[in-house]
Amino acid sequence: MPTQHTTVKRHPERGAYDRATIDSILDEALLCHLGFVTDGRPFVIPTIHARDGDTLYVHGSPGSRMLRTAKEGVDICVTVTLLDGLVLARSVYNHSMNYRSAVVLGRAREVTDRDEKLRAMQRVVEHVLPGRWDDARQPNDGEIKGTTILALPLDEASAKIRSGPPTDDDADLELPVWAGVIPLKIEPSDPIPAAGVGSSPPAYAARYRRLT
Amino acid sequence: MPTQHTTVKRHPERGAYDRATIDSILDEALLCHLGFVTDGRPFVIPTIHARDGDTLYVHGSPGSRMLRTAKEGVDICVTVTLLDGLVLARSVYNHSMNYRSAVVLGRAREVTDRDEKLRAMQRVVEHVLPGRWDDARQPNDGEIKGTTILALPLDEASAKIRSGPPTDDDADLELPVWAGVIPLKIEPSDPIPAAGVGSSPPAYAARYRRLT
Repeated sequence: MPTQHTTVKRHPERGAYDRATIDSILDEALLCHLGFVTDGRPFVIPTIHARDGDTLYVHGSPGSRMLRTAKEGVDICVTVTLLDGLVLARSVYNHSMNYRSAVVLGRAREVTDRDEKLRAMQRVVEHVLPGRWDDARQPNDGEIKGTTILALPLDEASAKIRSGPPTDDDADLELPVWAGVIPLKIEPSDPIPAAGVGSSPPAYAARYRRLT
Repeated sequence: MPTQHTTVKRHPERGAYDRATIDSILDEALLCHLGFVTDGRPFVIPTIHARDGDTLYVHGSPGSRMLRTAKEGVDICVTVTLLDGLVLARSVYNHSMNYRSAVVLGRAREVTDRDEKLRAMQRVVEHVLPGRWDDARQPNDGEIKGTTILALPLDEASAKIRSGPPTDDDADLELPVWAGVIPLKIEPSDPIPAAGVGSSPPAYAARYRRLT
């Protein structure tokens, strides 16, 4: 259910509140922007996340300002945005972008239980690169302790989506101006091995494709 | 000069404070995440921006909550993040991403002067799609009035950059785990004309490439 804070007010027809839509956007996005308040001022920092059922995990390090703040119990906002294309209308005013965004609001808790933290770390790695967790050297106790994970319930969340062609004013439709969409997508190129690596990249790296 | 709020504390070696670096990141990013505070809670919303010298313009509509708030004089934070690649280390713990991000803090003013607003609108369009402004139907007075633009000075800003291969612990270097980087890039595909458009796409759309 949309709340006062998650209801999409500008372009309400673009709002979506069903969990399937919200989840699909969170799951596809490779990074999120985490907002928090310090001394009354807003800060927005990029970080990575992963969803596990009804929980959104956000990854970071204990030294980072954002997570120190959040651990003290401050509300946070996690926003992800997928850019799908540039929308060229006949008029400057009706230019737009196609995108899918999700906003999750709430008060995060720090994950302190070792098993939950390890599982959250696994979710983050598998979120970015499915298949990677089992191949890499697993975290030891010091590394688990040295990792900070916040958990945010997916209780207060919304999505906003624009897709499709430009919507020009009727009076502009006959103008001799090209109009349409330039689709955009994140594309990988060939993996670059680190020094000393003699093997071929595993399939999940050689043929990396983001969820669609 | 970095201030208390813009100094990069986590991974300080990744911090950059020179305007050329900050500007290049702002200029390449197709969208930004704008943070603001309402009732003590943080909100983060995607929007578009453009730099004009020492000023960062942020685009939006008067109906949107973020800009209503900012017009009242609340501090904002504008963050952009360019994702350049996935960094696969031998250990889970040393996995990372290559990225370039910029954070701009400050108190925005609403642009009310008609000429400045029109120029800012032009900068936003040309920021996304160089060459487009002159081709499209120009904004009329109602459209200019119906657009909200905020201006934020580039006084308090910083960048953070990670690039290059993974940095594994020495003890992990002999592990039989593939390590390296999967480069990522935003790639356009062929423009899709809107219904009724008979002409070919202009060169800036047919061969769209983001700044690099």
